[in-house]
This record gives sequence, C-alpha cells and structure tokens, in this order.
Amino acid sequence: MTEVPALADTSPQPRQRILSLLAQMTLEEKLAQIVGFWEKDDGDAVAPLQGDFGEPPTLANFSRHGLGHLTRAYGTKPVDADERARWLWEFQRGLVTNTRLGIPAIVHEECLTGLSVWKAATFPTPLAWGASFNPGLVEEMAAAIGESMRALGVHQGLAPVLDVIRDPRWGRVDECIAEDPYLVGTVGTSYVQGLQSQGVHATLKHFVGYSNSRAGRNFAPVHAGPREVADVLLPPFEMAVLDGKARSIMHSYAEIDGVPVAADPTLLTGTLREQWGFDGTLVSDYFGVAFLQLLHHIAADLGEAAVQALTAGVDIELPTGDAYAAPLAEAVRAGRIDEAYVDRAVLRVLQEKLDLGLLDAKFEEEPPTGVDLDSPRHRALARKLAEESVVLLHNDGTLPLPAGRRLAVMGPNADRMGALFGCYSFVNHVLPQHPGIDPGIEAPTVLDALRDEFAQVTYTPACAVDDDDRSGFEAAVAAATSADVAVLVMGDHAGLFGRGTVGEGCDRDDLELPGVQRELVEAVLATGTPTVLVLITGRPYAVDWAMQRCAAVVQAFFPGEEGSAAVAGVLAGTVNPSGRLPVSIPRSAGAQPYSYLHVALGEGDEVTNLSSTPAAPFGFGLSYTTYAYDELSAPEQVPTDGYLPVVVRVTNTGSIPGDDVVQLYGRDLAGSVTRPVAQLLGYQRVHLRPGQSKTIRFVVPTTRLAFTDRSYRRVVEPGAVDLWVGTSADRQTQVRTELVGPVHPIDAESPRWTRTELAA
Amino acid sequence: MTEVPALADTSPQPRQRILSLLAQMTLEEKLAQIVGFWEKDDGDAVAPLQGDFGEPPTLANFSRHGLGHLTRAYGTKPVDADERARWLWEFQRGLVTNTRLGIPAIVHEECLTGLSVWKAATFPTPLAWGASFNPGLVEEMAAAIGESMRALGVHQGLAPVLDVIRDPRWGRVDECIAEDPYLVGTVGTSYVQGLQSQGVHATLKHFVGYSNSRAGRNFAPVHAGPREVADVLLPPFEMAVLDGKARSIMHSYAEIDGVPVAADPTLLTGTLREQWGFDGTLVSDYFGVAFLQLLHHIAADLGEAAVQALTAGVDIELPTGDAYAAPLAEAVRAGRIDEAYVDRAVLRVLQEKLDLGLLDAKFEEEPPTGVDLDSPRHRALARKLAEESVVLLHNDGTLPLPAGRRLAVMGPNADRMGALFGCYSFVNHVLPQHPGIDPGIEAPTVLDALRDEFAQVTYTPACAVDDDDRSGFEAAVAAATSADVAVLVMGDHAGLFGRGTVGEGCDRDDLELPGVQRELVEAVLATGTPTVLVLITGRPYAVDWAMQRCAAVVQAFFPGEEGSAAVAGVLAGTVNPSGRLPVSIPRSAGAQPYSYLHVALGEGDEVTNLSSTPAAPFGFGLSYTTYAYDELSAPEQVPTDGYLPVVVRVTNTGSIPGDDVVQLYGRDLAGSVTRPVAQLLGYQRVHLRPGQSKTIRFVVPTTRLAFTDRSYRRVVEPGAVDLWVGTSADRQTQVRTELVGPVHPIDAESPRWTRTELAA
Repeated sequence: MTEVPALADTSPQPRQRILSLLAQMTLEEKLAQIVGFWEKDDGDAVAPLQGDFGEPPTLANFSRHGLGHLTRAYGTKPVDADERARWLWEFQRGLVTNTRLGIPAIVHEECLTGLSVWKAATFPTPLAWGASFNPGLVEEMAAAIGESMRALGVHQGLAPVLDVIRDPRWGRVDECIAEDPYLVGTVGTSYVQGLQSQGVHATLKHFVGYSNSRAGRNFAPVHAGPREVADVLLPPFEMAVLDGKARSIMHSYAEIDGVPVAADPTLLTGTLREQWGFDGTLVSDYFGVAFLQLLHHIAADLGEAAVQALTAGVDIELPTGDAYAAPLAEAVRAGRIDEAYVDRAVLRVLQEKLDLGLLDAKFEEEPPTGVDLDSPRHRALARKLAEESVVLLHNDGTLPLPAGRRLAVMGPNADRMGALFGCYSFVNHVLPQHPGIDPGIEAPTVLDALRDEFAQVTYTPACAVDDDDRSGFEAAVAAATSADVAVLVMGDHAGLFGRGTVGEGCDRDDLELPGVQRELVEAVLATGTPTVLVLITGRPYAVDWAMQRCAAVVQAFFPGEEGSAAVAGVLAGTVNPSGRLPVSIPRSAGAQPYSYLHVALGEGDEVTNLSSTPAAPFGFGLSYTTYAYDELSAPEQVPTDGYLPVVVRVTNTGSIPGDDVVQLYGRDLAGSVTRPVAQLLGYQRVHLRPGQSKTIRFVVPTTRLAFTDRSYRRVVEPGAVDLWVGTSADRQTQVRTELVGPVHPIDAESPRWTRTELAA
Repeated sequence: MTEVPALADTSPQPRQRILSLLAQMTLEEKLAQIVGFWEKDDGDAVAPLQGDFGEPPTLANFSRHGLGHLTRAYGTKPVDADERARWLWEFQRGLVTNTRLGIPAIVHEECLTGLSVWKAATFPTPLAWGASFNPGLVEEMAAAIGESMRALGVHQGLAPVLDVIRDPRWGRVDECIAEDPYLVGTVGTSYVQGLQSQGVHATLKHFVGYSNSRAGRNFAPVHAGPREVADVLLPPFEMAVLDGKARSIMHSYAEIDGVPVAADPTLLTGTLREQWGFDGTLVSDYFGVAFLQLLHHIAADLGEAAVQALTAGVDIELPTGDAYAAPLAEAVRAGRIDEAYVDRAVLRVLQEKLDLGLLDAKFEEEPPTGVDLDSPRHRALARKLAEESVVLLHNDGTLPLPAGRRLAVMGPNADRMGALFGCYSFVNHVLPQHPGIDPGIEAPTVLDALRDEFAQVTYTPACAVDDDDRSGFEAAVAAATSADVAVLVMGDHAGLFGRGTVGEGCDRDDLELPGVQRELVEAVLATGTPTVLVLITGRPYAVDWAMQRCAAVVQAFFPGEEGSAAVAGVLAGTVNPSGRLPVSIPRSAGAQPYSYLHVALGEGDEVTNLSSTPAAPFGFGLSYTTYAYDELSAPEQVPTDGYLPVVVRVTNTGSIPGDDVVQLYGRDLAGSVTRPVAQLLGYQRVHLRPGQSKTIRFVVPTTRLAFTDRSYRRVVEPGAVDLWVGTSADRQTQVRTELVGPVHPIDAESPRWTRTELAA
C-alpha cells in the first residue's frame, strides 16, 4: 500500500446545512450517498465482468438508506420517456418521503452524441466535432442536449470524452475529439459549457491516460512518463476544469506506468484538487473500483479496492456499490480506513446535490410529459454540425457531381441507419440487445439523401461491413459499369465489445478498411467508372491507396441523424466541404502509435528506413474553393510571460463561398527537453465570399507554449519559435518570433489553458 | 537548462600518478583524452549525418596533444591484420614519443558477433545466445573474442547490447539477447565476464531505453515512465555492472519522456555512479553528443551539446571529437562549463588507461603477426552455440528427415553466406561498401551443409529476400513436386540503414516475411509435398500461418559461420534441437508493442475483442525427445528478505538424448502496483539421456521479485507468489509460496540482480 495523503478537503467550505446533514448520518446512510444503483435485466449487459458480483439486490432494498446516483434511469433500455418520468418522479418522491434524511438521487445518463435515450436526437460523433473546428456550434449542441436532460429530470451526463487520440487502433477513438490537446480542450470545454448552461452537470472522462493504451488495446497499460501525461494528456482536462468549470470527472480504467489511475492519489487528489482546485465530484468509471481487484490485481479483495479508490479520491462508485457498499462498510468498521475519507466523499456529493437543488426538491410536481427529444432545433443543429464536419480528402475535379449524373450507389454504409451513429448512441449502444425495436428517430440513410439530390440513382449493397462475402461484387461491378459515377459508401459499424468494427472493446490490429471493402473498391475502380469513396467511420483508416486512385474521397466521421444530407450535399455541391482532419490519416497499423504532435525523431528520418508520415496530416481538408494566406505577422520579440499577437489575412481565391479553418501552428526550435515539430496554437473557422479577405487576429498566451521541464515544472522558456498558418505539415506562410526574458514558471495565477483569444 | 548536479567523482581515489598527470595537462591535452578519432574514407559511411561536420582533420594533426580513443583501427575496412598491427604499433609509439605526455590511445572495435574485422570468426547473433539459454557458453565465446582483440592491441569492445526487446519491428532486435531482462542480464553479464577475462574492456550498450522506441522506429522517442525504465530496462545493466564489473558503458541515442539520455544526469550520474557505484568510463554512441543539437534539438550548437553531455556524465565522445574538441574548448574558455567536469572525465579515462597498462606501454615490442582470428577453437564454439540456439517451432513428425529423403532446397537464405550473420558482423556491416572483396572467412551455406547430410538435394533460389520477383516460383514448384520434402530456407538479410530487412535503421511496418517469401511458401505448400520452413532471421516474424500448415518450422537466429551445419544437423537429426524462444513469435505487427512480461491487461481479455497472444510464447521450443517435470517444491513461506529454494525434477521421457532448458517462472498475485503475469526467475540447460531424471535446485533471491513501488523505492513486498516450471505461458507444474514479513527495501547491500544460484 502506498502511504495515504494528508486528508485535505479542498472544496469550498461546505454549507452548514451539509455539515449538519453529515453529522446526522449513520455509516450506511453515508455509503448510500456515494454509490449508484443500476436497475436492469440480465439482457442489458453492456460491460465485461459486470455479472461477476452475484445476485443484485433490488432497488428498494438497496436505497432504503438513500442513494447517491440512479444509473441510467432512461437509457438502459427502450422505454417510453413519459412512463419512465412518472416512475422516476415516484422513485425520487420515495427517497424524499421514505428515507430518514429525505435526499433524492442524482440521475445520470450517457449523453455523448446526444442524450442516449430512446427517441432522442443523435448528433455527430466527437471526431466530427473535432473536424468542425467549431466550438461554438458544439456548445449549442450540448445546450440542446442539456435542455432535454433537464426536462426529464436527469442531473448529470457522462460526457464529454477528453482523451487525446494517441493510437487509431483503439476502438474508442470514435468517442474522442482529436489528436491535438488544444483542439480537444477547446471543443470539449465548449461541450461542458453548453451542457452546464442548462443546469446539467458534465462529467469529464476518462481522467486520464485511457487513449494511450499499449498497441491501442482497450484497458491495456499506458506506457507514458509524467511529462507526456502532463503535456499531452492532462491539458484538455485542465481547460475543462479551469475554463469550463466542469462539475464532475470520471477516472480512467487505465494504469499508467504500473499505477491504476483509480488508485492514484497523485492524479486524483494532487493534480485535480490541490493543483487545479477542482471542487466537484469524482465518479468511478463503471466497475472501475472493482477492477482494481479483478483486472489490475493491486487489491486482494473488494474492500481493499474500495479503500484504495476512496483514499485516492474516487468519491462515487458507479454504476452501483459493488465495493463502496458492504465491502467498504466492513473496511471502515475494521479500521482499515479512516471514516474521514468517507465523509470527504459524502460532503462532495451533498454539495453537488445542493448545487443541483436536490436538497430542496420534493418531486411533488407532475412529471414531464411529451418532451420532444428530437425537436426541429435539435435536427437543425445536428445538420449544421454534420455539414461542417465532412472532410474532403481527395478530389480530381469529379466533385461536386452535376445534377444529371447517373449514380451507382453501393457499399455497406449506403443504406444503413446505424452507420450514421457512434458507439455511445442509443441505437448502437443499447438497441442491439433489443432486436426488432424501432429505432425511434428518423435518420435518412445516405442513399435516401442521394436520391433527394440526384434523379438517377441505382443501389446495390455489394458487401457487408466486416465479413468475407464477395457475392455482391458482380452486381456492384455491373452497376458501376452502367453508371456515370460509382459512389461507394463504406466504413465502420459502431458497437460494443466485438459487436462492431469500432467502439468500446472493438480495437483493430490493422487499419485497412474492415472485411472485403477495399476489394470492392478495387473491383469497382477496375471498371474505369469514376469512383467516389465516401467513408463513414469512427476512426481514420489507412486509405492512401484510395486517395491515389479514386476520383474523390470524402471522410465523414459518424455524422448523426442529419448526416446523410450533409454527405449528399457535399457530393452535390450544395454544401462546400469545410471539415478538417482532427486526426491523421495513418500510413499503416504498423506505423502506430503516431501523432502529429511528435518530436523531430518521431516520424522517421535519416536514422530509419521507414517513414511514419501520415497519408494526410492533422488539419488537412479540401474545399470546392481555394484559400490563400498572406500578411502573416507577429512581433519579433515577446516576453515569456506575455501574449503573442499574430495576424494573418485569409482570402477566398476561388469562385464560390466557403468556410475556411485558419490554423495557427508553432514550433519551439530548441527546448531544454525535446519539443514537437508542430503544435496547434489557435484556429478560427471563417466564412468567405468569393474574393473576400478577412484578417484574423490571434492573441496567443505564451503559456500555450509551456511544457514540463527537466525538474517537472511547467514553464515557458525563452528562445526562437516558428509560427505558421497552413496545416500541421504544410507551412503556407510563416514568420519567426522570439520569446525573451527569464524562464517563466506557470503558477495558479497564469492564464494557463485559456483559449487563444481572437481579437476583433 | 536543467540544473547541474553537484560535481562528485565517485570513482575510487585516483592514484597520485593520474592526478599528477592531470595537473600537468593543458586544456587541449585534456580534451584530447576524452575524444576519439576515426580515420576513414568517404566511402566508409556507416551512420547518418556523420558527414555533417565538414572536412575532417588528419589523424596526425588531431592527435598532436594526445588521443583518448582510436576508433575502429582494424574494423573500418577490409585490411590485412598484420599490416594494420604494424601501423597501429607505430601510431601508438608516435603518441608515446611525439606527444608531450606520452599516453597511448585506447583502441576500440565493434565485437558483438565476434571481432568485427576482416577474416575474424563470426559467431551467432545475440538472439541466438538468448535462445541457447547458456550463459557459460556465451562466456567462452566472449573469451575467445577477447583473446583475438588483445592479440591485436585492441583494448575495448563495443559490446554487449543489453537492450531488452520491446518491439520486434525495431531493426536492431537482431543485436539484442531477449525480451526478458533477467535472461538479457545473465547472458549479457557472461559476455562481459568472458571478454574482460582477456583484459579487454566490455562496453554495455545502449544505456538506456533504445529498444523501447515508439512503433519500433530507430531513434524514435521512448514513451515510458520511470517504473518501466527501472523494472524492465535497467536491470540487465545493473547486473552487468554489479555482477559483471563492466568497465565501460555507452549511452543510448534515445530520449525518454522528452529527455535525451545523453543529456540526462539522473541516469548517467545518479543511477550509474551514485546508485550503482559504476567507476568505469561512459562513452557516447557514435555522434550521440552532436545529435543533441542535430536530431533532438535540445542544444542550440555543438558547444551547448558538449556542455550538456559532459555535465550529465558522458566522459568520452565517439567516434571523434565533433563536440568535445573545439566546441567544448570554446565553452570552457567562455565559462559556460566548469573545467572540473572536464577533469572528471579525464580522470576516468586515465584510470582506464592505467588499468589497461597503457600508461606504461611503450609499444617498442614487435607488433603481432599471423594471429589466427578464426581458429578451430573459435569455430568449435561457434558451432556449439549455433547448435544450442536453433528453435524447433513446429513438427508434425516430418523431422528429423531420414537420410534417404530427396530434398528440394530453395529460398533466398539457402545458399547465401550473408544470411548467416547479423548486422554488426564484418560481412554485413562493412563489406557491402567494398564490393568484390572476399569475405575472408569460411562459412558454408545451409545448402552446402544439407548436401553434407543428404545425398539427394536439388536447389533453386526461387525468390530474393525482399523484392517482388516471382519468376522463380515455377521452378520451385516443379522442384518441390519431384521431391520427398521441400526445404525452404527463408528470412532476413541483415544490413545498415535500409540496406537490409533487419539491422540498424532497417525497421519494419509489418511482420510478415519480407518480399514474396510467404507467397513462395504458399505455392510450395499447394504442391502437397511436405514442407519444412527454415527461418534464418534477425527478428521474430508473424508465422502462425506457417506453424499451422507446414510440416515443420525451424527458427534460427543468424547462426554464424558454423550455423549451417547446426541447421542441417537439426533437419537430419544429428542435432536434437534445444533452443528456446528468447522472444515471442508475434501475432501481427498491429499487435505491437507486446512483451510476455505484461500485466493482466496487457494481452487482451474480456475488455477488448483482440487478443495479442503470441503465435509462440517466450521460452517455447520443441525437441525430438520429450521432457516431464514433477516433484516441484518450494517452502510454504519465505521471508521477504530471504532466498527461495525451488526444486523440480526433470525427466527425459523420450527415446533419444537431449538438452532441456528448465525454466522457472513466478507471478506475484497482488502488488501495490500492477505486476506481470509471468516473470522468469531462473533457468538451467540440462542434458538428459533417455529415461534419465535430474533434480534441479534453484535458489532464487527474493530480490528477483522486487519492483519499484508507489514511492519509487525498489522493494520486495509480502504476499502470495505462484511458481511454475514450463514456459511463460504454459504452467506444466506449479506451486504457491508466500513471502512473509515486512516490505523489504532493496539497498546497496542487497543481493539485487545476482543470478539465481543453482545448488548442487
């Protein structure tokens, strides 16, 4: 056992009322407040090992001393929201009236791509948010999600995912925003602000390291040093805590260099509480406390697992109290842990309930009825975000397709609604356990949307997402031969634990398109018919070959319920593509892990025969118009503790209007530790009419260039910095500046992860 | 810049003579002692960027103030040893008589698979040493190498490589011993002891981390935390320093978590000097000091690179003084570094020269002539080591082949001498720059050796190692069809920087056999003729498919000048295979990195759809006889600061004599940090007649189970430990023991990395 830290509650002085509540509580009542309960049937399994804990108790019995969290009251199965709201209000009323202290439960749900509940709007997946480079729009989306949640009496959402993408083989890449920490941090913080604007608490996950697992295997150990953790993995969380005021955080299942995060007081208390001043609640990832015993083997039993997690700083065990209920009670009684740790967690939960108004809620009002979870406003936001997220990877001039073209549409994602949604969508996360149930939302397929845009469309599925059946190839080749253009809609199916090609527990050994999809593309290419490849995926695939040989390649990351119209709009030219890659298109699986944010020796050089250069770099994306940058300027010198004003002019040099994403990058030319060859410092989506110019003024705090030095201080060092506008790999225009003055240590007063400001 | 450590010379009190020498020295004379000189032509390039330093000076001019090291006097090109010895003696005499202080140079050479000099014996590659599990034999080999070196006036050898294999994609895996630190440490220490028994100093390399580069790319950054470094990467070095008394160490090119090792005082001074008490010299890897500026970009110029490296603890710059000559002189004069750091390095070099007898050497004797660098004793050792290193991966009973079989031999490694040697052999490292030169040693090919064993052998090359020419397939299929058995000799060609399929700067994106080799095997398999696949490689390849479909698969790691006879002997049955895998046979490139030494979550489980389980595990290898283990016993309890006596009986249950490698593994069932699911604790090669039993008694210091705890102390913790005999993955017989007593911290007095003892 590691030594326990000094017990320190760094949350704001809890109100007298909370202290007084705590003082009245029995141990059972305290523990009841720091666990959840998940009422579900056997068939609702969504996580491994969850059945390992014997016969579950009933909710009534479990909550007789109160209850901290009610787990996924709406989202566990397809239930009518009105009916479920009636049940929920009654249950909450029961807690108010039938338990001694009368405290209702916090109700939490998944809500990553929309409230993960039957009939609720399903938005684009986080990779698409990243591709939009539009935090404001993501904030609007999150506000719409939060509004639905609040209406249903849901208090907390288990989103956003702030894991920085480190290896595209990992199945949960679909839930992540980008491979750049600043993009993840800005977009993720906007999500937090949007959700919380509705009084619903966001939950940052997975704190921290989960995305950096060995070989991209889910749950595999993270091989990273403290500098990589501090400089790459933690920043988005820091931004969302400091800038976004996130109210809750979920720990990561991962171990980092031998220490599972769920048992690590350095991260959960040192970094989060003492360094960042986080005063919300820290919840466990589902079964994460028990996993300390069952998977990590650092605890001999569930009691010890509970002691380690609670001591480290995990306040609430989700989805239910496998370790924090009976085993922790026994550990407290046996003196294996100071009850003060229990009190610390209970105070935080009570504070959250106070903030949510739950300590005064009686649930005497009527439950809501007829809440429209998929209103026109939801759909308009879903549409706009989808449109801004489609990335045009390659185009030989075939796109946009004139209206009269005869299209042969094919591929496993052309006419499949599930192809539009990520793993944490209700459709792909929950409905597969309920076959035959109507999905509950309208979501036209790409084929539907193409038929809206084009008069002459034939369709044949041609192949499945991931099997070896080539029996449809012949029909596909015939269809392509008789068409002007073949449109192949390919990619992933998101699912859980082996039920998808991407998603939680759906990792990949290789990064070729799954199944026989590449073979189908090659067979169609052989017909000579111009071939447009539309990728609808939850991770980037190694499609260099397609970018060389297809007429055009369009990359959509699961674009949501309105995504098909966005894709068809790009093909028809009614939407000018403006998405930019939030993640590099990989060279191959064998070149992984790879990140654009690499040091000079991270991509191959004279010292190896092998390049890891991606097929398309972070930030890349084409348009139907062209943009030019000029008049880039920055001061020759700026103080290490100052701000770096950078100005650039962007001009639409083509003939149609469009949105550009102006990206500002920097490179610290020599540091006391190795520094990346490119780092995103700021970005701005801008709309330009043909011929129009706009001047973009970035004000970058020098702290954006800070890093963890040899002595593990976070500092800004003096020295030369290259600045450029373009993509991570393409310096379209550049200047050099110099940071001057002493080494500037970052402290609590520094503008640390504050967003790059845009001056008027 | 990081703060410099307090200047502390922890080497033994230098003799008065050395201090007195130092006191007389000018700065130029001091700096001359801490650099090497490499006299070579432009065509001798062996490393990237080495031409970046402008016109090289002449040796005469460079050494006018003396010289620390003479770099590869014999091994840079094919030269007659007698002639070169005359030159060398004259040069050394010149230093004695023509420089003010009269100090000769240390002469160093590469010597990994034998002295890397024209006409010198070339032994099996280190992976084969690992496969032999026979440190005693490796010690004999190293003594033979050392004897040759001493005879030629070479004082220091740049071997062994103690990098623990972490990713088979890396090209230098060929130079490494194993993926287990204990096997690397024991075999590597034996090499050190053998070489140094002849008065020649060994150089441990590459300290530390090099093998753990991202995606297996040469020089790519190492993503590892301090616990992984301490528990996996450092132990072999610690063993070779503490047990092997190694006299020199070479730093690694790598950066670990942002800090290049060549500039890291924590590792180079803290760990090596202060913690381990290492008192030898630390030399730079070739150009490694300059690379701090050129590749790592943590120094603005060569002077700063020199300051950082010298301060951190790099004593001598090799191959020559790019940074430690003029740039360091300027830095000292400008006050950018305390001259005491120069003195510290000079004292260490002078101490080494004193130890080597160089301070008294006058070189007045006649230089050696006619030294036999490839004597019958060399060849006998090469043969025995090769025989013990061949691993039989699969056999359906086809092997051994009866004498009368008609063999169709084919494949790119069947009749190619270079196929037998590793990257650091003279034949593959140096001779490619000198086309047409006779290799200078006899090394029968596998085809030659098979013709010695079998009367009816046809041969066709069939394909090259790594191109796409399939024109030889037809002849190969015809030959196979007319034969009783097809013997396909496939694998790697070792070379430098893209000139090989394995070797320095020859990394791989995928782990399929290079080129069209697999296609050839499949074409031959299709004939129905039983197919024996012989792999002669420098890394493990993903050959699961071959193990399923071929009649037999034999894995030889570059087996050296006598290796063909060993391979042919295994096929004929005159050699009973006894090699065991020193590295897992991988599942795929996309499953990398992988190590058998993984935590429970490191191989895939309920939480991912993908298994990383290797095609054959560490420690695996078949025989023509069978072995059984019984009577495994260990005490029920042992103190945490004690020794664990483990006894097991092994019996040859087959009908022919053979060598078994008895492997003892352990698993700490619950630790304060995550622990590997298997860890090699001891091993013993044992010869057994049919029916014979032997009882093996291991005495394992509990410190073999030590690890780095939460507070970064190295400790042995109490708790249950599973012990078994078998392979890493196959518990053929097992017992459980319990470590009892308090947590036992490891200190300088502990028997830390001492080998597991074998009681009589």
